Formats: sequence, structure tokens, C-alpha cells
Amino acid sequence: MGDVMVQKREELSRETVREGDLAKQLEALKRQVENIKPGAEDRMSIVVFSGDLDKVLAAFIIATGAVAMGMEAVMFFTFWGTSVLRDSKKKAGGKDLMGKMFGFMLPKGRNAIKLSKMNMAGMGTGMMKSLMKKKNVASLDEMFEMAAELGVKIYICEMSMSLMGFKKEEFIDYPNLEYVGVATFLEQAKNSKVQLFI
Amino acid sequence: MGDVMVQKREELSRETVREGDLAKQLEALKRQVENIKPGAEDRMSIVVFSGDLDKVLAAFIIATGAVAMGMEAVMFFTFWGTSVLRDSKKKAGGKDLMGKMFGFMLPKGRNAIKLSKMNMAGMGTGMMKSLMKKKNVASLDEMFEMAAELGVKIYICEMSMSLMGFKKEEFIDYPNLEYVGVATFLEQAKNSKVQLFI
Amino acid sequence: MGDVMVQKREELSRETVREGDLAKQLEALKRQVENIKPGAEDRMSIVVFSGDLDKVLAAFIIATGAVAMGMEAVMFFTFWGTSVLRDSKKKAGGKDLMGKMFGFMLPKGRNAIKLSKMNMAGMGTGMMKSLMKKKNVASLDEMFEMAAELGVKIYICEMSMSLMGFKKEEFIDYPNLEYVGVATFLEQAKNSKVQLFI
Repeated sequence: MGDVMVQKREELSRETVREGDLAKQLEALKRQVENIKPGAEDRMSIVVFSGDLDKVLAAFIIATGAVAMGMEAVMFFTFWGTSVLRDSKKKAGGKDLMGKMFGFMLPKGRNAIKLSKMNMAGMGTGMMKSLMKKKNVASLDEMFEMAAELGVKIYICEMSMSLMGFKKEEFIDYPNLEYVGVATFLEQAKNSKVQLFI
Repeated sequence: MGDVMVQKREELSRETVREGDLAKQLEALKRQVENIKPGAEDRMSIVVFSGDLDKVLAAFIIATGAVAMGMEAVMFFTFWGTSVLRDSKKKAGGKDLMGKMFGFMLPKGRNAIKLSKMNMAGMGTGMMKSLMKKKNVASLDEMFEMAAELGVKIYICEMSMSLMGFKKEEFIDYPNLEYVGVATFLEQAKNSKVQLFI
Repeated sequence: MGDVMVQKREELSRETVREGDLAKQLEALKRQVENIKPGAEDRMSIVVFSGDLDKVLAAFIIATGAVAMGMEAVMFFTFWGTSVLRDSKKKAGGKDLMGKMFGFMLPKGRNAIKLSKMNMAGMGTGMMKSLMKKKNVASLDEMFEMAAELGVKIYICEMSMSLMGFKKEEFIDYPNLEYVGVATFLEQAKNSKVQLFI
């Protein structure tokens, strides 16, 4: 009986050692986990700064490609990019002189933008568009449709709108269009897996 | 008494099973934690390759916006971007012919840079600057001041300096300015949440 | 004897409490670990959209720098970037009229590309190249060699090839060259630590 008790006592103390060990290991693991910063969210955030046909096309190909892969996609149109979102059939009144001038000089929507290179007075841009048709590459019109259907979010930079004198009523109809400041975009971009400046 | 002992023995073995289970679970969790790569640091790393007014403005708006959101911001000025950091009032001697030529041809500082589009012999750039004033958008001068105050780090690419023949004595005074190689920047960029090439 | 048993019983129940506690802590930690998304892989993914000498150089300096730091590097050449990978000595037959025109108008390989700024009818580009030699900055030829040796992967965008009418037989010999769609690149880019659009 006494032997059994001794054995038990030994077992118990062994247990206690092993358990204290487990507790220590658990503590160490907890600290380790706390130090691991969480990975980014499955989202692609693109700044569309450019208003060039080739770059805007690239932005849409990448954004829709990302959604096709199961990611979210957010496009933040700023500076020259805002022109791309103008609706050629819409008009906005109440602009000051500068606003009217910018409105006149900047391309009116996605069908008025040009290639960044080899535009050659429009010839290069025309060639590229006819090539895209021939090779079954989606046009910018089709890209916008696809993006809308896939749920790609489009943000318009409010500061750029104000600078260029653009009004909300002259932008395209798009299901996920929002007018935001740079902070709102950065908040989204910060925790995205991918960020691009195009 | 014997019954009690038997009961104890059973309890002990149950404990041991449960404890062995805990140890196993702990091991599994440890392996899992080891396989999780740490997330990136709360930092925005921007390559400022461009020396265009519009793109440099965008870079500063994004960098200062990031700091306002609690992130760190590092700007690595390279190629055309290095021109932006020249101080228009400072002179550097001892340049070779090529260095003198580049020094002459490249814009002397942030107030000499132009829009990437619609510069129209300076008219577009002038219009944009007056618009920015009117719409209360910070000028590049104010952006530099704000960036300095917010602790945005500015790195100048040593290789670009050497290529363009720029000397340290012709750059602006800025509290967090460092002359670094691309490796130093990449080391910072690698573990940043956001990286942009502008 | 009875006292000993009581003591044991108390120890046992204390053990059970502590152990139940461990189990709870382990559970909590498990849930925490499950919620941590894995960090990105040690890879740099670069979209080389531009076909300008300065930007392509920057892309190679960054990509080879990344490999030197122990990262993987993938370069996805698309749009104007594809021209850079043409071999000036190779010819491709069987092109349609558009393909012939594009082939003629676009630069034939890395030694035919120009600076994005200050090209000045080739003078600026020439000056930059001679400067690079003088300052011991690797030329684009040397960059390609270095990238090949370091194992930098080069992807050519199939859609761009099709648009420009380029054929596989007119591209350079490079050990890690692959012809891929944008989805293949995005798959790699998504889980990379760094992504850049150049």
C-alpha cells in the first residue's frame, strides 16, 4: 500500500512537472502569436492616376482578373484618371471659368482617351482599338461593364474633382461608384494584399 | 480504501490521457504558428521615380495621408525624382562637363517641375498651381513642410545622384533626409504594408 | 494515511482545475491563430508595362536587388514592355499587315529603347548610356545577364504579344522566360511581399 502511495506521489509530481511545462510552452506560444501581425486581406487596391488608354486598360485587366481569382478589387481614380469616368453625354452647369477650361481640355470620358505612346495624332490609338477588336481583347466599354458585373468598386478622388472642376452629375452611371477622400482609399489599401499605382 | 485507490488510479490515467492530448494539441498549434509568416509592418514605402509635378504631388498626398493614419512613410527619390530635391538657391562646384550639362537641363527643384500632361509650354502647370491655391490644395512647398513635420523619411538614391552628377551640397534642407543605396530602401520596403512606384 | 489521501485528493482537484484552465487557454489560442491570415511570401512581383529605358532599368535594378536580398523576383512584361524582350537579330515570319506595322514601329529590343524624358532625338539617351558606362552602372545588357544568373523569372504577357502581333521566335533567349496570361502572374503577385507597376 505504502509503495503504491509512493508511486502515486511520484507520478503526481511528474505530472505536475509536465503540466507546468505545458503551461510554460503555452505562455511562450501566446507571446509568439501576439507578435505575429495579421496578414493582409484578399483585396487589390489600385490608384488609377493615369488617364491614358493603355494604362487604364491595364488597370481594368488587372482589377477584373483579381476578382476572377476571388479577390476584391478597388480602383481609386485620381488626377488624370478622373477624366476617364466622365460621361460624354452628360453636362454639368455652374462651372467657373477654370472649370470650363479644364472641362474642355480634358478628354470627355473613356472613349476620348489616347495611348500614352504612339498616339500619332490618334492613328496609333485607332490602330490599337481596331486591333483589340480583331484579337478579341475587351474594349474599355466592355471592361467597365464587366467590372460593374464583377463588383469592382470605383472610387473618385474628391480633391481631384474639385481641382479639375468636375461635378458629380457629369460622371458615368456605375453601380459601385463612390466619391471619397484619399484617407478612405488609404484605409482600404493599407490592409490589401496588393496595391498598385498606375 | 482500495476502492478509493482504484478511483484515483482511474482519475490519474484519465488525467494523463487528457494531458497527453493537451500536449499534442499544443504541438500541433506550435507547428501551425511556425508556418504563419509574419504580416508586414505599418509602413508605406514609395519609390518616387518621376520628376513630374502631378506625380510628385500625388506621392506627397499619399505619404502624408499615410502618416495621418498612423503609418510610417518612406519616400525613395530616384532617377528624375532626385531633381525635385535640389535647392534652387544652392550651388555645387567641382562638376565635370556631363554633370554640368545634366545640372543645367534638369529642373532645379520642386518649383521648377512641370505637369506630365498638358504642360502646354508652362501654361497648364501655371493653371494647375493657381487652381490648387484657389481650392486650398497644399502646394508642393507646403507638402514638404508638412512631410517634414510629420516625420516622413526622404531617401535620395545614391546611384541616381552619381548618374546625374548631383552633389550633396545642392539638395534641400530636410530633417529626415538620407543618402542611401537601393538595398537600404528595399530592406525597408520589403516588410512594409504598402509599396508604390510613382 | 487518511490525511495523505485527502491531500492527494486536493492536489488532484487543483491539478484538474489548472489543467482545465490550460485546455481553455489552448482553445482560445487556437481560435486566435485561425484568425491570423498568413503573411506574404518572400517575393517581388513587378509589372513592366513601360518600354522606356529609364523605367526598365529601374525595374531591373529593383528586381536584381531583391534577389540579392534573398527574395524571389518575377517580372511580368506587358504592353510596351514586351518590345524590350525582342531580339534584334531574330526575325518572325507570317505576320499580318498590322503585325508588320507594329513590329516596325515598336523598338526592336532593349538596345533600341529610349528615355521617357529628355530623349532629345536620341541625344539624351546616348548621354545617359555613356554616363552609365563612366559611372560603372550596369547597362541593360549586363542587367539581363545578371538577372538570368540570379534566377529572376521573366514572364511575357500573351495578350500583349497577340495585340502587338509578336511571335515567340522573335524574343530573346533567357533561361527563365515563360509566356503567360495575366491570371498566372496575378496568382504569383497576390502572395508576394512586394508588387510594383512600372
